[in-house]
Formats: sequence, C-alpha cells, structure tokens
Amino acid sequence: MSTSIRVLVNGAKGKMGREAVRAVRSEADLALVGETDLGDRLAETIAGTGAQVVVDFTHPCAAAQNTETILRCGAHPVVGTTGFTPADIQRLESLAAELRRGGVIAPNFAVGAVLLMRFAAEAARFLPDVEIIELHHDQKADAPSGTAVKTAEMIAERRAPAGAAAAEKESVPGVRGGRWRGIPIHSVRLPGLVAHQEVLLGGLGQTLTLRHDSLSRASFMPGVILAVRKAPRLDRLYYGLETILEL
Amino acid sequence: MSTSIRVLVNGAKGKMGREAVRAVRSEADLALVGETDLGDRLAETIAGTGAQVVVDFTHPCAAAQNTETILRCGAHPVVGTTGFTPADIQRLESLAAELRRGGVIAPNFAVGAVLLMRFAAEAARFLPDVEIIELHHDQKADAPSGTAVKTAEMIAERRAPAGAAAAEKESVPGVRGGRWRGIPIHSVRLPGLVAHQEVLLGGLGQTLTLRHDSLSRASFMPGVILAVRKAPRLDRLYYGLETILEL
Amino acid sequence: MSTSIRVLVNGAKGKMGREAVRAVRSEADLALVGETDLGDRLAETIAGTGAQVVVDFTHPCAAAQNTETILRCGAHPVVGTTGFTPADIQRLESLAAELRRGGVIAPNFAVGAVLLMRFAAEAARFLPDVEIIELHHDQKADAPSGTAVKTAEMIAERRAPAGAAAAEKESVPGVRGGRWRGIPIHSVRLPGLVAHQEVLLGGLGQTLTLRHDSLSRASFMPGVILAVRKAPRLDRLYYGLETILEL
Amino acid sequence: MSTSIRVLVNGAKGKMGREAVRAVRSEADLALVGETDLGDRLAETIAGTGAQVVVDFTHPCAAAQNTETILRCGAHPVVGTTGFTPADIQRLESLAAELRRGGVIAPNFAVGAVLLMRFAAEAARFLPDVEIIELHHDQKADAPSGTAVKTAEMIAERRAPAGAAAAEKESVPGVRGGRWRGIPIHSVRLPGLVAHQEVLLGGLGQTLTLRHDSLSRASFMPGVILAVRKAPRLDRLYYGLETILEL
Repeated sequence: MSTSIRVLVNGAKGKMGREAVRAVRSEADLALVGETDLGDRLAETIAGTGAQVVVDFTHPCAAAQNTETILRCGAHPVVGTTGFTPADIQRLESLAAELRRGGVIAPNFAVGAVLLMRFAAEAARFLPDVEIIELHHDQKADAPSGTAVKTAEMIAERRAPAGAAAAEKESVPGVRGGRWRGIPIHSVRLPGLVAHQEVLLGGLGQTLTLRHDSLSRASFMPGVILAVRKAPRLDRLYYGLETILEL
Repeated sequence: MSTSIRVLVNGAKGKMGREAVRAVRSEADLALVGETDLGDRLAETIAGTGAQVVVDFTHPCAAAQNTETILRCGAHPVVGTTGFTPADIQRLESLAAELRRGGVIAPNFAVGAVLLMRFAAEAARFLPDVEIIELHHDQKADAPSGTAVKTAEMIAERRAPAGAAAAEKESVPGVRGGRWRGIPIHSVRLPGLVAHQEVLLGGLGQTLTLRHDSLSRASFMPGVILAVRKAPRLDRLYYGLETILEL
Repeated sequence: MSTSIRVLVNGAKGKMGREAVRAVRSEADLALVGETDLGDRLAETIAGTGAQVVVDFTHPCAAAQNTETILRCGAHPVVGTTGFTPADIQRLESLAAELRRGGVIAPNFAVGAVLLMRFAAEAARFLPDVEIIELHHDQKADAPSGTAVKTAEMIAERRAPAGAAAAEKESVPGVRGGRWRGIPIHSVRLPGLVAHQEVLLGGLGQTLTLRHDSLSRASFMPGVILAVRKAPRLDRLYYGLETILEL
Repeated sequence: MSTSIRVLVNGAKGKMGREAVRAVRSEADLALVGETDLGDRLAETIAGTGAQVVVDFTHPCAAAQNTETILRCGAHPVVGTTGFTPADIQRLESLAAELRRGGVIAPNFAVGAVLLMRFAAEAARFLPDVEIIELHHDQKADAPSGTAVKTAEMIAERRAPAGAAAAEKESVPGVRGGRWRGIPIHSVRLPGLVAHQEVLLGGLGQTLTLRHDSLSRASFMPGVILAVRKAPRLDRLYYGLETILEL
C-alpha cells in the first residue's frame, strides 16, 4: 500500500492558501501535516512535521527566501507566489541541483491556461495568422492581461511567417487592437465576465479557436495538486507548470 | 387555391442576382417570370411579363431610377442595391404613397444580421455595458465593418446609461478597441473567416452574447424571399428589412 | 427632487435574500427599510416601516400567502420565490386588480436569460431550424434544465414550420439529443461550468447564436432591481420578468 | 539556390484534385509538372515528368494500387484518398521501408482538425472530464461525424480517470448525448452550418474549449502543401497528418 505524501501549506490564511488547504485535504493520497503563515517559523515546522512538500502562496517579498528555506530543510517546494527575479530563479536552480532536491515554481497554476498557451504556440507553427481576445470583468484596470502578453510571446517565438493580409485601414482608430510581438490583442471589459482568453488561428478555409474560461481561484488547484504529486520525485527546480506536465 | 406571386429579377447576371434567381425558383409559391439586366428594357419587361414584384440587385448608380420605374410600371420593388441617398429615399417614399403601391429597400437582407442588431439594441436597454467584436477574412481592407458601425448606432440610441468601469490603462495601445458612439468595437481579420459579428452584453454575474455567422451570399436569400412574399400587400415604401419583419 | 423607493426584503437571511439586501443597498434611489424572515411578522413590519415594495425570496410553501399579505398591507410585491400554482396566480391577479395595486412574480429574474428566451422565440419566426445546448456544472443531477424546456416551449409556440432536414441516422444512440416540442436539446455537464445556455438558429448560409452565461446568484439582481423600480407604478399583477421589461 | 519540388497531381479533375492543383500552383517553391486522372497512365507520367511528389485524390478502389505505383516509380506519395485497409497500410509500409522511399497517407488533411484532436487528447490527460459537440449542415445524414468518433478514441486512449459526476437523470431521453468510449458526443444539424467541432474540457473552476471550423475543401490544402514539402525527405511511410507535423 502506498503511503500519503506529507504536505505543509505556507501562507495558509491567504486567499490562495486557504484554497490550497482545502484542495490538499480533499485528496486521498495527500496528508496535510501543517499550516503556516508569514511570521511563523517555517524551518522549524518543516522539521517538526516531516513535510515532504511545502506549498507556498505567501508574499512576493518572501518568496525567494521561503523557497531556499524549503529546499535546505529537506522538503520539495511548490511555489505559486510571484515576484521572482531571473537572478532568484537562477540561484535557486543552482541550490536545487547541488542538493539534488527539486520542486516547482509557477506564476500560473491553472492547467487549462497553461495548456492553452502551449497549444497556441504549437498551432501557430502551422497556422501562423493569429489574434488574441482576452475578456475580463470591468474592474480590471489594466489591459492587456499578463496572460495575453505571455501568450503572444510564446506564439511569436514559434510561429511560421504569416501570409500577407490586406493593407489595413482603420476608420475608427483602435478597432484592430494593439500589437505585441506582431500579434493583435483585443481586450474586452464587461461586468459579468471573470477571466477568459481566446486565441483564434486562421488558415485557408478553416479556423482553430482555443478558449480558456477561469471562474475562480479554485481553477489553480488541479495544477497545484499535480505539482504536489510530482514534487517528491523531482531532483531539480522547474519553472512554469508547463515544464512538469510531461514528466 | 392560391396562385403564385409573379417575380422578375433585375440584375440577374450579377452575383446577387444569380442567387436571387435560384432562390425564387426554389420556392413553390413564387413564379419567376423574367430576368433582366442593366441595359435591358426594364419597363417593357415588367409590362410584358405582368410581374407583381421586381427584385433589384443592380448598380448603385441605377438603383433609385430602377425603383421609380418599378413603382410607376405597377410592380412592387424589393431592392438590395445600395447607394440610395436620404433624398432618394424620401422622394421614393412620396411616390409610393401617392401611387398607394409599396415595397422594400434594404441595405442588408440577411435575416440573422438584422435580428442581431435589433436584439442587441433591445438588450442594451437592460444590460447597457456592451462591446462588439466583428470578425472577417483577411482580405477585407477596412475596419470596422459597416454592420458593426450600424449596430453600435442602433445600440447607442436605445441603451440605458452604463455603469462606471474601472479607469482604464492600456499598456499596449489599441487593445481596448475603437469606440463608436461610446461602444468599443474590436475587428479581427484572419484567413478562414468569412463574415461574423458578436455583441457581448454584461451585467451583474451574467453575460448575454449574440452572434451572427454569415457564410455566403445565400444568407441574404431568406430575407429577399420574405420581402417578396410581403411586397404585394404593401402600400408604402419600407426601408430596412427589420421594418417588415413584424408585418 | 425624487425621493427613494422604500423597500423591505422578506427572506433576508436566505441566499437569495442576502443578495437582494446587498443589491437594494447599493442603489442610490432605493432605501432598505427592513429585513424580515419566515416567522417574523411580515404584516406588522410593512405597516411599521412604510415599505412601498416588498421583495420576497422565502419558501415555496409561503409564497402565495406572503404575496397576499403584501398586497393587503398596501405594498407592491416583487416575488422570486417559486411554487405558485396556476390557481394561486389567478387568485392573486384578481386580488391585485380589486385593490388596484400590482407587482411582479417571476420564476427567473436573470434579465439576460429572459431576454434570450424572448429573442430565441422571436428569431425562430424567421429562422425555424433551432437547437438548444444547455451547459451546467457536473453536480446538477437532472437534464435538461428547466430553462431549456421553457425556451423550447416559447420557441415552439412561435416558430415557422422548419425545412426538411436529411433523414437522420444515429450510429451512436443519443448523439442527436433529446426532443422537446420537436426541438433538439443537448445537455452538457462538466466541472468548471456554472449555468449556460445557447440557442442556435440556422438558415441558408447563416447561423444566429444566442448565449447566456450565468455565474452567480448576483445575476438575478438587476432583474429584481428593475422590478422594484417599476413596482410602485403597477396596478395589476405581472407574471414573468419579460412582461414588465417593456413597461 | 534551392530548386522547386516537382509535383504531379493524380485525380486532378475531381473536387479535391482541382483544389490541389490550385494550391500547388500558388506556392513559389513547388512546380506543378503534371495532372493525371483515373484511366491515365500514372507510371508513365511520373517517369516522363520526373515528378518527385505525387498528390493522390482519386477513388478508394484505386488508392492502394496508386500508392504502390508511385513508390515503385521513384516518387513520394501524398495521399488523401480514403479506403485503405490495415493490411494495405502494412504492405505499403513494408514496401516503402524496402525502397527507402517514404510519403504520407492521411484521412484528414485539415491541419486545424488534426491539431484539435491532438490537443484534445493531450489536454484530457490533465482535464479528464470531456464532452464533444460536432455541428454540421442539415443535409448530413449520419451522426456522429467520423471526426468526432476519432476524436473520442484519441481522447479515450490518453485521458486520466474522470471524477464522479452526479448520478444523471434524463427527463427528456437523449439530451445527455451519445457515448463513445465513455465520452458524450452531441451532434447538431442545422442549415447554415458547414463542418465544426468543439471539445469542452472541464476542471475545478475552469473550462478549456477547443474548436475547429471548416468552411471549404480549401481547408485541406495547407496540410497537403505541408506534406508535399516534407515528402522528398521521408524514407518511410507515415499514416496520419499528425505524424509528420513534428518532423
């Protein structure tokens, strides 16, 4: 009989942390062994509980230090906190390699969003004419969304050269959207929306549309659980949920 | 037993005219009694065939004159040709009223497109937060589409005041679309698309989406046939397919 | 200067009632003058607070009696509770007519859902080929949804005779959906969905798609607020949100 | 400077063949060196024109023999004709291996459709709750579509075990669709539709939707051209467009 994976949630009182506690509790093969927060003694709790995996949803200013603590204390980090600099990532990758103990840092744990980005980039190799529509609630102040920008970048890196469209004339300025890495992005803001993204790819006589709808924080949990299950076997640090999907 | 309506198609060799000929032929209650084109003698043919309804898909420069001819020769016009000035319309309305013989002039005979515009305007009375996405093939040179502009105008005339959205910050200029009468319009251009329009209306916890997809010229024919069937009973001139839907 | 409408919420501790309290409070032209629940003395509270409108989200078994109380105590009812029999409705209509004091009883206060049903029925007069897809979370035990059935009925009452489709052969039984009043209904059940409905209407070369997405109980509130604003002017009882949209 | 690839189209007078002729002609790096049809002498024409690649869209009864002829005459086959038995495929694979000359046989050359199937199967590993909606014009006599069945099979082979949905009760039989390999399939048939497929995957708080719209035979051509460009380098036979996308 296989034993459960022992999981500690750090940042357990935050919005995401509470979701993570709920998610870990609802999985039969995971055992929640502790909950800590900013200010609690993380190292001691890892040691005291024998946690194998630590899920961290705390604050950007603490993220890098926490990850280091988790690795040094013998546990595998699964970190959804943002705020890592490239230098942070590099330093933590070296540490993990040295300790031969790995984990996952991911800015977006929504499996569907990560799959959409990957599929969009993949599809653009064969259908290079692409536009992005991202739709969010009307209280979101900035446009475009970070996910749309990241999606455009992932597409731009892989897509084939696009065909020549008609020379464009905008009789109402802005209707053709904004361009990022050459890809038009359209941002819709309406009450009643939550967080949605659509990538449209067109080819001769056909279109391929990829859409992700995210309704709640709960959408991040399947990705977190997936990472928790894989973490104990990892011997290096992975950045981005997409990098462990295939492991 | 009811007899068939006698129909003449003017502009029968053009793209739309050929579709109209096909459409009239396929309806059991309509009889195609003639086909004419620019240069043919329209008045004589109406008289000779005893046409009750003349469908006109010719050229903007001839549209007003043709409509006058049709009315004076005793038939009811169903005109899809564009290019009428407001003065043309007014003059033809007077003529039709005087003769007590009516018909239909419509810039768009696609029933679905006309319904969408009407529904969008109606819905905006209750859900005033609205955005329009129109999607066309990549050889369309101008943006936004005329239908999108007309839709925005119809919405703007009827909608209730919208709620205050968050102050907007565009980090990539253009992503929030172009505004016409205060309504954001987004134009997508991709190969594989034909002619599509989506109106999104948002309210607390809900969205209502209206979408029309037009795949071919054939999409105009149900509207033309509808108008042909109603034309013999009309005693004044109607402008816009939407004005006769309820008759 | 116009004064606020005085509103009492009955059933204020229930899920819908709490939403109603929040919604009334957030509108500048409405004044929340009281909150009652099953067991509280409704008649006395109406009298004591001088409520002009009473919003009722209580229990099916109390709905008819509450509505009568509200009418007799001099207030206008806006009732979202379900469970009225046709006889209840008839009796309350008579009472309202006699008292010359009206209100609204509506089984569905989501403006978007009600508009979708009306538009679908209207569009089917011109595009009689229709199918319904309703999509709900996977914990919904029954299929199809009540809204889909009601939509099919509203469409069936108004639509023109549909064209002859190809004789159908189902190689996997059930793929063509279930039929209600001759209209195919398809029910999708997946985690991550909330409550969505799509009506697809097809015609020659075109399709018209109407979609409503409902994400939360909050989606009922704009309809409730609309009814509250209109209620003080009503001198008879209206059944169905759609019946007051045009007033 | 690279020289053009010499291409012969067999079945050039058929609907697909005519499209292939047009497509090959419009690519600068491909040279159309011949057009043949059933009854023409294929072997001689390959020899006479020095064709490097032969595109075959002929008849199921001739497909296997043609492919053998193409391989033996020293050209690389790109075959869109259907009707191959598993034994045919096996025999042709052996022949190609022996001759060290490869090519592509594909039942579906629409890049978007093939990508959709692959993405759906891939996504179902992480989001195992899946339903398929396929939508076609109302003259299609059979349901579900072959593509929907193939998609369900590809998903079924790779997906993780799905969660337990609520026990289902169908009050209108058929609304929950038909099941193939455990996956619900819904078939919509309406005039105005062409050929469309949607795969919906649901997870906690999110949905991922993949949709392919095919409007014309032209949609197969980018896949054919892709195969033509890769064929000269192939030293074995590939079955399915998806197998060469990554080469």
